[in-house]
Amino acid sequence: MKLIADNLQVTHYSLKKTIDALDPLPIQKLVKKAEAQGADAIDINSGPLSRNGEEKMDFLVKAVQDVSDLPVLLDTVNARAIRAGLQANRKTAIINGFSLEPDKLKNVLPLAKEFNVDIIGYLLYPNGHVPPDSESRLNVAVDLYNAFLKCGPAKEHLIIDPVLVPVMWQQGGQHARDVLSVIQALPDLLGFPVRTIAALSNLTTGHHSRKQKILLEQTYLPMLAAGGLSLLMLNIFHAETVQTARVCTSLTGNGVFAWNDVT
Amino acid sequence: MKLIADNLQVTHYSLKKTIDALDPLPIQKLVKKAEAQGADAIDINSGPLSRNGEEKMDFLVKAVQDVSDLPVLLDTVNARAIRAGLQANRKTAIINGFSLEPDKLKNVLPLAKEFNVDIIGYLLYPNGHVPPDSESRLNVAVDLYNAFLKCGPAKEHLIIDPVLVPVMWQQGGQHARDVLSVIQALPDLLGFPVRTIAALSNLTTGHHSRKQKILLEQTYLPMLAAGGLSLLMLNIFHAETVQTARVCTSLTGNGVFAWNDVT
Repeated sequence: MKLIADNLQVTHYSLKKTIDALDPLPIQKLVKKAEAQGADAIDINSGPLSRNGEEKMDFLVKAVQDVSDLPVLLDTVNARAIRAGLQANRKTAIINGFSLEPDKLKNVLPLAKEFNVDIIGYLLYPNGHVPPDSESRLNVAVDLYNAFLKCGPAKEHLIIDPVLVPVMWQQGGQHARDVLSVIQALPDLLGFPVRTIAALSNLTTGHHSRKQKILLEQTYLPMLAAGGLSLLMLNIFHAETVQTARVCTSLTGNGVFAWNDVT
Repeated sequence: MKLIADNLQVTHYSLKKTIDALDPLPIQKLVKKAEAQGADAIDINSGPLSRNGEEKMDFLVKAVQDVSDLPVLLDTVNARAIRAGLQANRKTAIINGFSLEPDKLKNVLPLAKEFNVDIIGYLLYPNGHVPPDSESRLNVAVDLYNAFLKCGPAKEHLIIDPVLVPVMWQQGGQHARDVLSVIQALPDLLGFPVRTIAALSNLTTGHHSRKQKILLEQTYLPMLAAGGLSLLMLNIFHAETVQTARVCTSLTGNGVFAWNDVT
């Protein structure tokens, strides 16, 4: 299971100024820290980038890739900014992402084919809503896959995100269980070992103490890992959670378990 | 997922004297502490009880049940001691347990029918060895179930233990993964919602610090819970692990997630 840092959130007040000033240093500092903590990829969550989106994404991709060889995820709803990011990319870029929403199918998905890159597909209804149960999630997965086959690159470039929701939602626990069963079911359903991704921080959105967040993360993460999740997006500065991820990788890997691999 | 305390190990030096002297107080103190920590049942691990086994098991069951209403597991290889425990039992007793070993089939399994109680069946070869992979574990499960149908009580009394081994064994990680897939496969394989049990402390046998043991337990436990495990045997005084178990129960239960249920 690869770990993707969700910490580069450019909408966050501490980074907002640096992008307006096109100052790469605070971003690069954060990226290097994330890499040191064990990140295998960096999600560039740039927000909508409604003003000067292309220029800003170009700046962000270059800022990150100037100091890191890790793959970057281009995480914005702005298709033109994604294109700019793909053009700026000199290493590995992943589009994050598309769904059955018409605008995404029309403007984002074709970019994956044009640039021949991985793309994350969200199991959401065309109106952006979260399906209510496992069965409807799997139905959406079939629709999403069919759309992908029409306009996307080779199927191996598809990564599916079954969409975690906050556990504090009325049906939060049920959603968490559904996500697990969907992750397990997808490879058989689609007929190939499709990769999956989940955003762990979504689970703990809401009123939890840091300790509670960590405990929830450390508990749900192994369930995802045992279910066969390929990629986990998380707060890479939650060191306890990262350590749990390492134990999971050692337990679910093929090698002999050894603490040296974990700590 | 119900929690069974594995702490009442009468072979342990601190308790050995009390059983020789038939002094119930240290045992009762430990049982009450285990119950306060969240135990749903108490495993009476008496060792082989080769000398005065019946008298000692009688004493142990009465000592526990004098201070607790929790179910007790009669955990010994001595069939006569198990019988004595079942005769002494005034509340709920579970036999722990039998396997395909000829002596167990002949002398232990029939006790479950005679006393109409739950019994744990271990997925072990007739020679007591651990099967090397998932498929052989499932083959053993079928043989065990057939033996149970011949000489056991109603099938709902069967609880299957797929046998966790230390993660530090050469194939320890593989065994841990196999146990998960076996737990998930058993209900379909046997055609009814058979209950399963795992002994978490087995996983961390060997050279680990307390911190490492807890981390391993907290990581593997959610995998077991997500796999549908019914009963977990563990060191109930590992408070962090118990808390993880509570989060698992809240996440995998039907209710709304609430920290009040956890902490």
